[in-house]
Amino acid sequence: MGGIGRIGILGSGSWATALAKIILTSQPSINWFMRREEQAQGIKRTGRNPNYLRDAVFDPRKISFFTDSDLNSFFRASDVVVLVTPSPFIKSYLKRVRSSSMRDKLIINAIKGIVPDENVLVSEYLHDFCDVPNELIGVVSGPCHAEEVARERRSYLTVGCFDINKAKAMANVLRNDYVSCTTSQDVVGIEYASVLKNVYAIAAGICNGLQYGDNFQSVLMSNAIAEMNSFVNTVHLLEREITDSVYLGDLLVTAYSNYSRNRTFGNMIGKGYSVKSAQMEMEMIAEGYYGAKCVREVNKRYQVNMPIMNTVYEVLYEKRDAAEAITALTAHFK
Amino acid sequence: MGGIGRIGILGSGSWATALAKIILTSQPSINWFMRREEQAQGIKRTGRNPNYLRDAVFDPRKISFFTDSDLNSFFRASDVVVLVTPSPFIKSYLKRVRSSSMRDKLIINAIKGIVPDENVLVSEYLHDFCDVPNELIGVVSGPCHAEEVARERRSYLTVGCFDINKAKAMANVLRNDYVSCTTSQDVVGIEYASVLKNVYAIAAGICNGLQYGDNFQSVLMSNAIAEMNSFVNTVHLLEREITDSVYLGDLLVTAYSNYSRNRTFGNMIGKGYSVKSAQMEMEMIAEGYYGAKCVREVNKRYQVNMPIMNTVYEVLYEKRDAAEAITALTAHFK
Repeated sequence: MGGIGRIGILGSGSWATALAKIILTSQPSINWFMRREEQAQGIKRTGRNPNYLRDAVFDPRKISFFTDSDLNSFFRASDVVVLVTPSPFIKSYLKRVRSSSMRDKLIINAIKGIVPDENVLVSEYLHDFCDVPNELIGVVSGPCHAEEVARERRSYLTVGCFDINKAKAMANVLRNDYVSCTTSQDVVGIEYASVLKNVYAIAAGICNGLQYGDNFQSVLMSNAIAEMNSFVNTVHLLEREITDSVYLGDLLVTAYSNYSRNRTFGNMIGKGYSVKSAQMEMEMIAEGYYGAKCVREVNKRYQVNMPIMNTVYEVLYEKRDAAEAITALTAHFK
Repeated sequence: MGGIGRIGILGSGSWATALAKIILTSQPSINWFMRREEQAQGIKRTGRNPNYLRDAVFDPRKISFFTDSDLNSFFRASDVVVLVTPSPFIKSYLKRVRSSSMRDKLIINAIKGIVPDENVLVSEYLHDFCDVPNELIGVVSGPCHAEEVARERRSYLTVGCFDINKAKAMANVLRNDYVSCTTSQDVVGIEYASVLKNVYAIAAGICNGLQYGDNFQSVLMSNAIAEMNSFVNTVHLLEREITDSVYLGDLLVTAYSNYSRNRTFGNMIGKGYSVKSAQMEMEMIAEGYYGAKCVREVNKRYQVNMPIMNTVYEVLYEKRDAAEAITALTAHFK
């Protein structure tokens, strides 16, 4: 088990499926919680997740499945729990977990988003609402399309944990022939970067929808990473290099990707869809939509100069005209 | 004339044509040197450069054309000369210019490459071989596909000059409805960034040719900008933000572009072409090919840790196997 114990994955979307695949390369077996019994049955029967990432093949004998009513047994049976649900659902799960079930577990956040209503990072929610001590809270992030993991193309992850030894142990679990993994103590910075990159991917989409070209997109990215740097340095001062792949790489892979839901959502806004109709069309709300609101709230306290984030917020929440807003934004850029 | 005097453009490729278009927005007229008389005749007759960037339309009455035998008169008739030839040809032009013709002219380098044989930056060549004083040497760079300038899509340039007031005056010449322009004193850093981004675009192409995916490309870019930062900070220590668009943006627009000659060249190498056959196929040598050699030479003195640049150099000049070299490189990344 490599010193870290038995690993449980909470969630069953494409990123959860990719992480299950990665973890099963180093671990003999895992626990896997998924809400719907049919999905578990599908994997047991076919060795593939029927709904997501069908390129990834599993040996069902290596997986102990837990479904809806087993949430507490899932936690009790795991030493490490990787949270990888869509962010809107995380609270409803965590509320059902008894604190006795969660005690002494290492909880690793792999959710790219924030906890709604409270508008806090998952690590903050775990600490403040679930009494998880900081040294048992971690994050895994990086520029990593699940689809490329499924096809075993070289990818990089970073594990952050307040306790660096736990980060190292978890990194050992994730490393394999096609995944490199580094470690960090910057849990908060990594989580915020992962929230902000979705906001900036919406900005990239808006500009694309408005017919801005590649020259401008590269300037947007340059200014976005500088803005992210100011924000995380203000909110959580720490020695970090914003050009590390967990910050810059993750921004680039999201904002330059045509598969990014956030970029697609922004693109529709730029083309003139209302927020509501873009959301209906996509059938799913892009994470960056919540992210912009969260960072806007948090930044009331810190007052970091964030013209790109503010522009996205005002376009999404205050019906500001996208074309006018981006024109005004260009004056801030360098 | 906006205080800077009459501007002359030396070169007639697509970037020269884009700069002519930009400059004619703020200036009533320009001097334009092109080697071949037919090309000048073509613009006079049709208002378009017959060979490059046909989207850009000119009023020939605003252009004084100079061709091959007029090189010295071109310099004498200009207060500012923008150099924008392919780098392999710049020396042969500058050698023909008498020092009396060049005296007191502001020389702005818009060449994305280095001076062959001497392996020096254009600014160094101007200073060391043409006796141009530093305060009369500038550079213009930025993430700027000429094709997008032709179509008047929002673009950003940076003018660097040892004399910041001259940089400001030149920036005023370049600014218009679709071009933003900032200033800098980092002539050397901007020139090296513009050489290195072509080397990194070759690396991006090689990885693409070897079937690495988007996850890896974003990690490559993250590590490339960090490597560029180490190099320019060692060679020319100065307060600079490597995330500014003239460094990071220019790297991104080049390395993520399928139109980049350097990326295309790298792609062929990654797919297994020899350097010679890739060069023959492309009919033109990618700037980054010379850039890698130049930086390798310069770095013998500074010994900056540059795994990406070294890998490109060894693949291009020492027949190192690309697949093996990139595999070895991935171990350096974070």
